[in-house]
Amino acid sequence: MAGNWLPSLKTANPQEGFELAAKLARLGVKLTQPSEEIRDKLRTAYDHDSAQLIASSQVIALHFQTVAAANNYWRD
Amino acid sequence: MAGNWLPSLKTANPQEGFELAAKLARLGVKLTQPSEEIRDKLRTAYDHDSAQLIASSQVIALHFQTVAAANNYWRD
Amino acid sequence: MAGNWLPSLKTANPQEGFELAAKLARLGVKLTQPSEEIRDKLRTAYDHDSAQLIASSQVIALHFQTVAAANNYWRD
Amino acid sequence: MAGNWLPSLKTANPQEGFELAAKLARLGVKLTQPSEEIRDKLRTAYDHDSAQLIASSQVIALHFQTVAAANNYWRD
Amino acid sequence: MAGNWLPSLKTANPQEGFELAAKLARLGVKLTQPSEEIRDKLRTAYDHDSAQLIASSQVIALHFQTVAAANNYWRD
Amino acid sequence: MAGNWLPSLKTANPQEGFELAAKLARLGVKLTQPSEEIRDKLRTAYDHDSAQLIASSQVIALHFQTVAAANNYWRD
Repeated sequence: MAGNWLPSLKTANPQEGFELAAKLARLGVKLTQPSEEIRDKLRTAYDHDSAQLIASSQVIALHFQTVAAANNYWRD
Repeated sequence: MAGNWLPSLKTANPQEGFELAAKLARLGVKLTQPSEEIRDKLRTAYDHDSAQLIASSQVIALHFQTVAAANNYWRD
Repeated sequence: MAGNWLPSLKTANPQEGFELAAKLARLGVKLTQPSEEIRDKLRTAYDHDSAQLIASSQVIALHFQTVAAANNYWRD
Repeated sequence: MAGNWLPSLKTANPQEGFELAAKLARLGVKLTQPSEEIRDKLRTAYDHDSAQLIASSQVIALHFQTVAAANNYWRD
Repeated sequence: MAGNWLPSLKTANPQEGFELAAKLARLGVKLTQPSEEIRDKLRTAYDHDSAQLIASSQVIALHFQTVAAANNYWRD
Repeated sequence: MAGNWLPSLKTANPQEGFELAAKLARLGVKLTQPSEEIRDKLRTAYDHDSAQLIASSQVIALHFQTVAAANNYWRD
């Protein structure tokens, strides 16, 4: 993927950190399946499948662990 | 999602931390499938499916790791 | 859920910590499916299904990571 | 389960730590399905199923993370 | 696999770290199935399967945790 | 398993650490299914199944987290 799509793990607060985690989960899919057309087709299927929604939520949870640690849990 | 839905990872005790973890697991689904109507339909299916309940419990476990670390395991 | 069901992550030893981890895994299911009747029905199915038993064991493993860290691995 | 089945997370070396991790993975199944008879029946099925063997290996990996951290990676 | 395919976990920024995480996820598959011919056949199947794309994204998330920690979250 | 199959988590560099992680993933399967004959039969099945290859890659990712931490990310 061209461009600068992940400049930093720093976010202003937990909510923006969570949104970054969701973005990282999508980026992981995008790096594996670069075709936007195919991803769009698949999306219609998986976002109506609760098992896959839970699996997506799990990937977000893993990335949120990383982003939260990178921001020292927004404690500073 | 509009509004301020994740102001802090700090909670008063482990129990509130666990409830926050469960909320984060739901938020992960919500960010992936924003339609409340579709999520409500899916809920009837997945909360009667033990495999999906266990998978949900796993996402909560991952977020609880993050919340517990953010609160220094409520040791202070 | 009413009451005080998670007062502390501190346990006297690793064994009690493991039992707490198993309790947290069940609590994650309970928060997602609050009906005891439905959970009891599902239990008969999943505790005869080795794949779901392994998945349950995985959720316990994740919580045990948290509980063990909270207790500084019972090193003190 | 009666008795003292998890006295410590300390092991003499990585190999004993790995064996303890495998024991913890089995204990997670045992706490969820206490009947030895049922577990024995299920074993015949799952240890011939590569997907379940990989899932078991994953639970061991999670516990090995905990045991390795508890032993400070046997660096001392 | 011959050659020097993983000289360092250090990267200049988060984006290169994420790309390294994706490479590590592929390396894990490659070590298990060394035949490029078989992997190419399988790729056509799995990159059209949203469940497998999410699973791939999860492996990337795990490796990104490692790479991010190795780089001290690019905070220095 | 007899012998000394895991003397140390120390490796000279990330690449050897990754190979150790892959070995640990295999050891987890071996401890659960000790029969080499059965494992060989299963191998033919799972290494042609992309979902299982991704799951194997995930177990390697978990062990690589442990090995990388044990080696202080080869920063020293």
